[in-house]
Amino acid sequence: MTKVKLDEIDHQILDMLIDNTRTPFTDIAKKLLISAGTVHVRVKKMEESGIIKGSSLTLDYVKLGYSFIAYVGIFLEKTHQTKFVLERLSQIPYVTVAHITTGKFNIFCKIRARDTTHAKNIIFKIDDIDGISRTETMISLEESINDKKRLMHTIFNEL
Amino acid sequence: MTKVKLDEIDHQILDMLIDNTRTPFTDIAKKLLISAGTVHVRVKKMEESGIIKGSSLTLDYVKLGYSFIAYVGIFLEKTHQTKFVLERLSQIPYVTVAHITTGKFNIFCKIRARDTTHAKNIIFKIDDIDGISRTETMISLEESINDKKRLMHTIFNEL
Amino acid sequence: MTKVKLDEIDHQILDMLIDNTRTPFTDIAKKLLISAGTVHVRVKKMEESGIIKGSSLTLDYVKLGYSFIAYVGIFLEKTHQTKFVLERLSQIPYVTVAHITTGKFNIFCKIRARDTTHAKNIIFKIDDIDGISRTETMISLEESINDKKRLMHTIFNEL
Amino acid sequence: MTKVKLDEIDHQILDMLIDNTRTPFTDIAKKLLISAGTVHVRVKKMEESGIIKGSSLTLDYVKLGYSFIAYVGIFLEKTHQTKFVLERLSQIPYVTVAHITTGKFNIFCKIRARDTTHAKNIIFKIDDIDGISRTETMISLEESINDKKRLMHTIFNEL
Amino acid sequence: MTKVKLDEIDHQILDMLIDNTRTPFTDIAKKLLISAGTVHVRVKKMEESGIIKGSSLTLDYVKLGYSFIAYVGIFLEKTHQTKFVLERLSQIPYVTVAHITTGKFNIFCKIRARDTTHAKNIIFKIDDIDGISRTETMISLEESINDKKRLMHTIFNEL
Amino acid sequence: MTKVKLDEIDHQILDMLIDNTRTPFTDIAKKLLISAGTVHVRVKKMEESGIIKGSSLTLDYVKLGYSFIAYVGIFLEKTHQTKFVLERLSQIPYVTVAHITTGKFNIFCKIRARDTTHAKNIIFKIDDIDGISRTETMISLEESINDKKRLMHTIFNEL
Amino acid sequence: MTKVKLDEIDHQILDMLIDNTRTPFTDIAKKLLISAGTVHVRVKKMEESGIIKGSSLTLDYVKLGYSFIAYVGIFLEKTHQTKFVLERLSQIPYVTVAHITTGKFNIFCKIRARDTTHAKNIIFKIDDIDGISRTETMISLEESINDKKRLMHTIFNEL
Amino acid sequence: MTKVKLDEIDHQILDMLIDNTRTPFTDIAKKLLISAGTVHVRVKKMEESGIIKGSSLTLDYVKLGYSFIAYVGIFLEKTHQTKFVLERLSQIPYVTVAHITTGKFNIFCKIRARDTTHAKNIIFKIDDIDGISRTETMISLEESINDKKRLMHTIFNEL
Repeated sequence: MTKVKLDEIDHQILDMLIDNTRTPFTDIAKKLLISAGTVHVRVKKMEESGIIKGSSLTLDYVKLGYSFIAYVGIFLEKTHQTKFVLERLSQIPYVTVAHITTGKFNIFCKIRARDTTHAKNIIFKIDDIDGISRTETMISLEESINDKKRLMHTIFNEL
Repeated sequence: MTKVKLDEIDHQILDMLIDNTRTPFTDIAKKLLISAGTVHVRVKKMEESGIIKGSSLTLDYVKLGYSFIAYVGIFLEKTHQTKFVLERLSQIPYVTVAHITTGKFNIFCKIRARDTTHAKNIIFKIDDIDGISRTETMISLEESINDKKRLMHTIFNEL
Repeated sequence: MTKVKLDEIDHQILDMLIDNTRTPFTDIAKKLLISAGTVHVRVKKMEESGIIKGSSLTLDYVKLGYSFIAYVGIFLEKTHQTKFVLERLSQIPYVTVAHITTGKFNIFCKIRARDTTHAKNIIFKIDDIDGISRTETMISLEESINDKKRLMHTIFNEL
Repeated sequence: MTKVKLDEIDHQILDMLIDNTRTPFTDIAKKLLISAGTVHVRVKKMEESGIIKGSSLTLDYVKLGYSFIAYVGIFLEKTHQTKFVLERLSQIPYVTVAHITTGKFNIFCKIRARDTTHAKNIIFKIDDIDGISRTETMISLEESINDKKRLMHTIFNEL
Repeated sequence: MTKVKLDEIDHQILDMLIDNTRTPFTDIAKKLLISAGTVHVRVKKMEESGIIKGSSLTLDYVKLGYSFIAYVGIFLEKTHQTKFVLERLSQIPYVTVAHITTGKFNIFCKIRARDTTHAKNIIFKIDDIDGISRTETMISLEESINDKKRLMHTIFNEL
Repeated sequence: MTKVKLDEIDHQILDMLIDNTRTPFTDIAKKLLISAGTVHVRVKKMEESGIIKGSSLTLDYVKLGYSFIAYVGIFLEKTHQTKFVLERLSQIPYVTVAHITTGKFNIFCKIRARDTTHAKNIIFKIDDIDGISRTETMISLEESINDKKRLMHTIFNEL
Repeated sequence: MTKVKLDEIDHQILDMLIDNTRTPFTDIAKKLLISAGTVHVRVKKMEESGIIKGSSLTLDYVKLGYSFIAYVGIFLEKTHQTKFVLERLSQIPYVTVAHITTGKFNIFCKIRARDTTHAKNIIFKIDDIDGISRTETMISLEESINDKKRLMHTIFNEL
Repeated sequence: MTKVKLDEIDHQILDMLIDNTRTPFTDIAKKLLISAGTVHVRVKKMEESGIIKGSSLTLDYVKLGYSFIAYVGIFLEKTHQTKFVLERLSQIPYVTVAHITTGKFNIFCKIRARDTTHAKNIIFKIDDIDGISRTETMISLEESINDKKRLMHTIFNEL
């Protein structure tokens, strides 16, 4: 887990791309008083070193009919099934996040569904994975914060 | 919560942008046998209707020195403080997600930190917000799945 | 709590009214080979003694847009507030059932709502009643049984 | 789950039947200044569309010797047994309500019994259903609210 | 469970025996201005009807070297094992009380032991009974009240 | 906590009195081939040393109309209130046992009541004692073992 | 468990060795105005009686790269596996402490690890021991007190 | 938290001192084929760098009359009181370990006491510290593993 060394210019490039990944490199170049080629080279370098793993759209799930979010805590029968269960979970697209956790759950995951009935079906699909003994569900009544940009800016200001 | 109507072309545009938000519109246009202008118009329309809320980089937090993830369940003294507490939480950049939830917690949030000591400081900062009576923390030992792209593709194939 | 004595005829009358409260007394009379007046007198007597407290329609809440059911467990600050809190709960029409209970909750109630957002508002209204320190919510994914008729028939067959 | 469209007259008819299902149609007709035939047609229509699923008596269970109410939370061995367990539960008439729920229980149900000993027998019968691993019981000390009429009136005033 | 009818004289006899079961019948007779034979007849009658099940010494367990008290909650694998488990428990003399309970435990019992090590051995013996899946122990730091006499006097004053 | 030394004769005397405290001393004397005076002297000595604290009747509470048993776990606001709360508990005759305990409760007590409603009133009385923040109740469905005699015999055989 | 009798000189010798086990016996002798031979004899006696079981270095684990401490609560399938499980635990050097406990866990242990990933591997190794059904982990954010010397001094001052 | 670099010789010196801190430096020197002066210099260096923080006796607490071990979980009213509470805990010598923890407790500590009554007094003293709202105690029935030497040897073999 060697940390990659980034310089001040890299930080400023990332800082701009975080807010809008489609910002043209020429705009970035102009702001930082460097050439667009330099921007290109540095972004490439950060992609190759793995710091930038990609980019993704931020969609409005409610508008797309997916307004139901729940957290599902999973109890396994035996932890040596962890890997197997995670593979099966990754085949259910409605499971967007999954963690191996300390505390009472072995695995803790987040699901997005259309509504209560859809959520029930997803939870049942999870419950039926071999090796899972029981699940507990906590339903989101409102997604109040979902924003990694504040963190990213903080990271680049800290460095 | 009126769902926006998207047609087949919109779905295919989104499907391509999900994987790489920087895909040039000319590439998308070529694949879908439409003009780049049409792509531009449709993306603009989806941005204006709020379906596309933006784009963000997917960074490797471990490489940036942020390898510690925890979920923090919050018990409030009284729920009429919910709004106030959420505002204070949104001032802590390490809190990347927060939900109002059913079950034993009033608010449930996710934090990213550099290490145990950093996490302790963040949790202490949360604990000191007025109106919070107690918190419970669950630490991630491994982030096994974190991928909304599978969900997005599923949504567009379903529609 | 003196139990009312009912005879065999009373049981049979109740048994028929349970399934359809609108069954004409003349139909009941014909089946039991008694006069409609007798049916009338006996039903009146059972109403006066308080055995029959009334009748109600069984509506399809899902068709009426109320598909969300949750159970809310309430922790009070002090139990001498129980009566006061129950009065306030009875002013929220979405609270259809409430019990003083043993176990971890002081009061346990059932709510019906239109959807997640509506449920959140109802729960917040409950949380804001003076004397309530905290609530825990359990959401119904499916109402699989809701039928007192089987019990009623059993009671009348037992007697 | 298409919602049925009801007009103002329908609401007023339901509003009257909710309080007393035996209200003669002629009384309803007189109050609403329409013909009894119209009332009949509209009630029929609401029955056929499934909005009105039937009617039931409200009996005084305490007077009938059934003063003991408990909620029983059920843990299943595996959730694919849910359907089977619900079928078995529906054969126990003392189980008047059962829900598939989120949270720590898989199924949550309500029972009515004569007394502690009777309740013990019912709980033992539930515990012995194949697929149930454990149950937890919460006993009602007082049924303080049990009234769906307030909700129904609210629904019809809202619409 | 027909309650036995006791008159005022019975109550007064019981009231005296509760405090000291060895009170001579002649002393009781003198106080109540009845004959010793009457006392004898009435005590006999109360023994035969089962109201008086016997008498026991109140010993000082601490002085006898038994200063350790614990409550043990038992989870069964299946409740149809309840009877069998209770029989096995009744063969362990250190288990002085056992109840079938509602709530999280199936059986709840009280043990008296000499010290921590002795308690461990008793708990292990309980844990090894077939049909018991798990136990939870709560240790008494001080037995502050253990007195049924106040209750008995209250009962006889109430009657 | 100096243990009192008892010899073999003492054990045998206690062993007989345990089963029936009214056994005449002459009967005990005959069985043990000693004089009644010796029995008297030794019992007196055991009373004075505090080993025998008294004797009590074993009554059938169900026959006396007290069929309801519950365990109540008490959470205090602050443990320095323990003494005060125990004094108040000892004024409620339906509280027959109370312990200061480890684990989640501060005080754990046992109550006997006539029925559910009576139990509710007792629990409410407990809840209203100053310094008690919350209680949790576990109801007995059946008192399966309540017998200290087996323990006493074991103790005297062990010594 | 016969307590060993130590006199005032023994206490003072122990009191000095507690703070620094390498204190030369001649220094101790000088302070206590006895001969070094006497110190030697008495330390030997305390080693032979088992009071002194040995000595150990106090190392700075953080400086050695072991900054992660967690407590792991273990649930066994059956308690007769306790001994076997403890033997297997004692083969994992990262488990520095293990107790058989009352309360919800059967065994409770403490682990030291290099970091989150290392801790995960240790917990997985524990989870895979036969007879363990589940574990719950509580992570230390800061080791604030770890000092048996205060206790030792207190013990010797008390004696 | 810069890790100190130790070489192979340092490891071997530590490895010997771990088992017996009183091992004469001349013995260590002979085994490692170096001079006693070198051993002295290296130990001094490790003390100055803080790797060796001291040494302590391993006493048999049971033989010293301290056979009672418990873990106490502490809930604070507010976490900003953490520091203050830890200071107060450090004044109670029976508290030998204390951690700030994740999970349900804010602080988790270990106590050693003479017996149940002594433990009760210590727990009461903890409960009365300002800022502590509640504690939960888990009692050790047997200390099965307490050995940091295996860990230390592992660390030095790993390095």
